Amino acid sequence: MAGYLETIEKALDDALPRGRPETLAAAMRWAVGAGGKRIRPQICLAAAVAAGGKAEDAVKPACAIELLHNYTLVHDDLPAMDDDRERRGKPSVWAKFGEANAILAGDALQALAFRVAADAPRNAAAVVAALGDRGVGVVAGQVEDVAREDASRPLDAESVDFVYAHKTADLFVAAAQMGALAGGGDAASVAKLGAYAFHLGLAFQFEDDLIDGDSPYSREKTEALVREHTRAALDALDGLPGDVAFLKTLAEGLVGRSA
Amino acid sequence: MAGYLETIEKALDDALPRGRPETLAAAMRWAVGAGGKRIRPQICLAAAVAAGGKAEDAVKPACAIELLHNYTLVHDDLPAMDDDRERRGKPSVWAKFGEANAILAGDALQALAFRVAADAPRNAAAVVAALGDRGVGVVAGQVEDVAREDASRPLDAESVDFVYAHKTADLFVAAAQMGALAGGGDAASVAKLGAYAFHLGLAFQFEDDLIDGDSPYSREKTEALVREHTRAALDALDGLPGDVAFLKTLAEGLVGRSA
Repeated sequence: MAGYLETIEKALDDALPRGRPETLAAAMRWAVGAGGKRIRPQICLAAAVAAGGKAEDAVKPACAIELLHNYTLVHDDLPAMDDDRERRGKPSVWAKFGEANAILAGDALQALAFRVAADAPRNAAAVVAALGDRGVGVVAGQVEDVAREDASRPLDAESVDFVYAHKTADLFVAAAQMGALAGGGDAASVAKLGAYAFHLGLAFQFEDDLIDGDSPYSREKTEALVREHTRAALDALDGLPGDVAFLKTLAEGLVGRSA
Repeated sequence: MAGYLETIEKALDDALPRGRPETLAAAMRWAVGAGGKRIRPQICLAAAVAAGGKAEDAVKPACAIELLHNYTLVHDDLPAMDDDRERRGKPSVWAKFGEANAILAGDALQALAFRVAADAPRNAAAVVAALGDRGVGVVAGQVEDVAREDASRPLDAESVDFVYAHKTADLFVAAAQMGALAGGGDAASVAKLGAYAFHLGLAFQFEDDLIDGDSPYSREKTEALVREHTRAALDALDGLPGDVAFLKTLAEGLVGRSA
């Protein structure tokens, strides 16, 4: 696990620009900087292993998914969106570099994510396609959530499935699929790992809701959903050709964070 | 030429979403809607032909470059950037759908651009890489230009090369390279067509400056630059294996638009 994190930080540092204009390079590095848990890239590396490949096969996709995730945070923090001046205990990108540079740094992070994904050593086009599908999806989830907030509607059962599936789970799914593809996994492994990540993402989101005391459902129902999705995530790991220990530990570690 | 345009409009319509959330689908379609000259996708289709392939090989890359170009326009128009309420004689995306939705629609257009590029029938990973390189580059040009405007510096000789090369030429270059790659062109053809597009982009920009009466150089020097870059673009077409008539006509048509 420490090895995974070190690999990811190095890949991000290698991928991020150093050149002109300095403001853009600085804003992009600030956005991706220390403090992130790097869950998605860890899932990506572990998915390559679970699919029967090696973690090193998935370094480029892992880097790509973290770059893409971080662009979504940069844009979410903008004044026109969540208007957050802080992220991970530091000024958010727009608070530090201005709104225009934050919009542009997010845009460049997304482009860079796809550039890096294209360097996957196997199935590169399919890796990019998975990132593209979920990269559109995560925005769809966000648009639906913004519309709901604008209308002062609560996150009810009607919208929660759509918003959580896209805003939260989509990048988990992309991470797992990309890792499986780059690791040379067959279609069944890619599908299993995608299902794992979908349920993991929902378990993660409902557990976060419990921690924040802010769930669309009752505490009992939310706890049941965490258990149900954690179980479904673990079940999806059955029959994979590679080592699933990391992914199993990750899913089991989610349950009870709120206890 | 009419055939190219029809092909491009159909590919864009096929690629753009129709589903939930409706606001996102509507904003993305509004952004890409009628009125664009579709120069970049036409270059892309013609580059496939010039490289010895067929225009139909490059339909996905052509669609991708137009989606990416349109996301940059959506974000350029935002209040924090150029603050433009109109684009092509209609309300800009943020003026019609609000700032948050405009940021998000631009983000989704960029993701969709890469998703579509991944479907190129040949050299798909290289096609995506070309789009990614220039997709980062176009933002770098914009950041440098924003910094210059914020400092109330004129677009002087020092910054003009960087800003024009990236903000204007980069997406022309991506269009040509992607088309050549998807058409199955060899490395020499990809390089020649990239050079053609670079010089075409600069000629196009300096000609626009003449039309707007707003060039970083004197009228005489700007006219000389248009001629010089048009000549260099035409020279780059020498020795290509396929038909270069479309690209030749396009470059020649640029000269004298301002006369």
